[in-house]
Amino acid sequence: MSGREFFTTRTVAEALAGFRPAHRTAVEEVPLSAALHRVPAADIPSPHALPGFAKSTVDGFAVRAADTYGASDGLPSYLDLLGAVRMGAAPTVSVRPGGCVAMPTGGVIPDGADAVVMVEYTAETMPGTIEVTRPVAPGGGMVRADDDVAAGTVLVAGGRPLRAPDLGLLAAAGVTSVPVHARPRVAIISTGDEVVPPETAELTAGQVRDATASALAGLAIEAGGEPVIAGIVSDEPGALKEKLTEVLPSSDLVVVSAGSSVGARDETAGAVAAVGEVWCHGLAIKPGKPTLLAESNGVPMIGLPGNPLSALVVFGQIGLPLLWRIGGCPTPPVRPNVRARLSRDLASVAGRLDVIQVKVTDGVAEPLFGPSALLSVLTSADGYVIIPEPATGLDAGIDVDVTLYP
Amino acid sequence: MSGREFFTTRTVAEALAGFRPAHRTAVEEVPLSAALHRVPAADIPSPHALPGFAKSTVDGFAVRAADTYGASDGLPSYLDLLGAVRMGAAPTVSVRPGGCVAMPTGGVIPDGADAVVMVEYTAETMPGTIEVTRPVAPGGGMVRADDDVAAGTVLVAGGRPLRAPDLGLLAAAGVTSVPVHARPRVAIISTGDEVVPPETAELTAGQVRDATASALAGLAIEAGGEPVIAGIVSDEPGALKEKLTEVLPSSDLVVVSAGSSVGARDETAGAVAAVGEVWCHGLAIKPGKPTLLAESNGVPMIGLPGNPLSALVVFGQIGLPLLWRIGGCPTPPVRPNVRARLSRDLASVAGRLDVIQVKVTDGVAEPLFGPSALLSVLTSADGYVIIPEPATGLDAGIDVDVTLYP
Repeated sequence: MSGREFFTTRTVAEALAGFRPAHRTAVEEVPLSAALHRVPAADIPSPHALPGFAKSTVDGFAVRAADTYGASDGLPSYLDLLGAVRMGAAPTVSVRPGGCVAMPTGGVIPDGADAVVMVEYTAETMPGTIEVTRPVAPGGGMVRADDDVAAGTVLVAGGRPLRAPDLGLLAAAGVTSVPVHARPRVAIISTGDEVVPPETAELTAGQVRDATASALAGLAIEAGGEPVIAGIVSDEPGALKEKLTEVLPSSDLVVVSAGSSVGARDETAGAVAAVGEVWCHGLAIKPGKPTLLAESNGVPMIGLPGNPLSALVVFGQIGLPLLWRIGGCPTPPVRPNVRARLSRDLASVAGRLDVIQVKVTDGVAEPLFGPSALLSVLTSADGYVIIPEPATGLDAGIDVDVTLYP
Repeated sequence: MSGREFFTTRTVAEALAGFRPAHRTAVEEVPLSAALHRVPAADIPSPHALPGFAKSTVDGFAVRAADTYGASDGLPSYLDLLGAVRMGAAPTVSVRPGGCVAMPTGGVIPDGADAVVMVEYTAETMPGTIEVTRPVAPGGGMVRADDDVAAGTVLVAGGRPLRAPDLGLLAAAGVTSVPVHARPRVAIISTGDEVVPPETAELTAGQVRDATASALAGLAIEAGGEPVIAGIVSDEPGALKEKLTEVLPSSDLVVVSAGSSVGARDETAGAVAAVGEVWCHGLAIKPGKPTLLAESNGVPMIGLPGNPLSALVVFGQIGLPLLWRIGGCPTPPVRPNVRARLSRDLASVAGRLDVIQVKVTDGVAEPLFGPSALLSVLTSADGYVIIPEPATGLDAGIDVDVTLYP
């Protein structure tokens, strides 16, 4: 009954390094308004220099800097006011020695000027004459035409999810649609005679509502995926193989939350092996040992443990990096960490990765225990602590890195 | 020209504590599949205990724990095999003293049993007789009917965005739709004669494409909002007031990225004052001083500085907390921090909040400088460092908290 189910156990490190199915999603063009957090398929160069013209960054007067050298309250420079620049329009006048032009913030620097003196250091003592009481260096109060971005420079890098300011920079450069990887479609299959849809109002003895599919769908969305809840498959022989065959052609990643009994796990392994190639069966992780990794024509299939907490932990460690990679992001965004003091000893086994759910209060990380069947452990946790594969445990009182949940 | 535009300057701390328009979005019911990151309007109690029945957490045999006391390899307990529990079905047999029932992981504990001994510590030496070689304590190898959640207990708290595991717990309890706050509609108005739509292929001198609207839309989405890009308004007197009047009835928050010149700022202030009540005009923040906060019938209006970097910094500090609150989340999710060593001295002014963009490399935070007109500063940054209001600067070499961007 036992003994044969973990015949090709691997460590998490081996799986991350070695299980790398080749499939990637196609590239599609999306408008900027739909591009947040999407992954550009390649570097996007700027078609233009930005801001594109020499531009005042202050309200004041465009001058030749040399005309202001030595200016002070006691000994101002007096400059002839030659005109004014209007926002959004080309200057109609240039600056000659001894002259100046009134500038709004954001206005185009007129020919002949090399600086803008702030209005605070000026006064119009006589009509047509501007008194300057502080010197300005060449380049002061202005930016050059390519100070923000030179034409041809990379605006945003390929393979990294777009952030809000990236959208602004793309808009500034006139790039209004972006070639991005399609969101990976994640088929989520639940199995088990005991599993019923969440909509089931009253259960009979031994039935459980499908919790895992909804939670996996949430994790998939957070990693840029598009979940497809593919339904619940009975433990009947052949049923899972049939479902896998149905969903594989339209999926970029297939997740099976396997039945939790040994028999159900064997059924999952058989079905997965029938439609693809098994890479490992058994992962040195706690919780989550009965995990199965396989692929079919480059599309990864993950057989997850039957209980929801274990399934979500494994999907977090193995599924999310795969999902990012399939969607064109080779290095997933790093989840934020906090340092916290571990409140109690944690035991582990060398060669196994342990993922411990913790609550963090006032800098102390308190492990949340309980049978791995309890989903509430995960909803109460602020994040998790990893006991790495070589370690045999962590001592109370040491500082640990807690990876925080979103 | 200057002097009157900052007549009611406030600090950021004052604004966060004192500027609290009353408007909240309505409550709507959404299915679980659309509930990720949405904000429940109230605590959601569990209609059922979870898992709902006493349940085996291992493959093995349901027993009376007392029948296994003292069992060892040398001196096993011998128990009569009375039957087997099938997944998802009620037990058809109960456990009497000296008896046991075969159990799959997840099966219903039969009457009379108070523990499950793992299959690894058993053997069926004779047909119908199970040999147990290790004792199990009462409650071992199983969870009780309400170990995960007791009926009536809060499954997820109101006012906190739903995370992926929350969706799983709700599904497990049969809660398949959730009353949540509607996404706040954020009207984004751009102003300025120099501003043209991002689609504009070629610019004439002095024109700039609207970068701020696209970036603000991204930030709004990240805070659960629904951006509505309301277009570009010219500096013509009356135009902004007309646009504000148009968008206010259908908006939960109105953002105006104001023209950057003094004249344009005055025009914004006049228009906002005409349709609502100004709370402050001028914020002690760098960058971002020319910020205006106002409200109209409880709907906040934010007049942002004209340059994109300043506008995004102010929206991050002031707009995002407002947006979360309007959407029913009084305490916005904390943005993750990292500690890093500051690479150089930073000067500030007491009473002003400074927001310094930084790049973090190998634990060192390198400030990114340049005129605040440069948007590329923000796209290069990993996060920002705050110089708080009382401080006059930060010294090179100290450890600072860097708030990371998503």
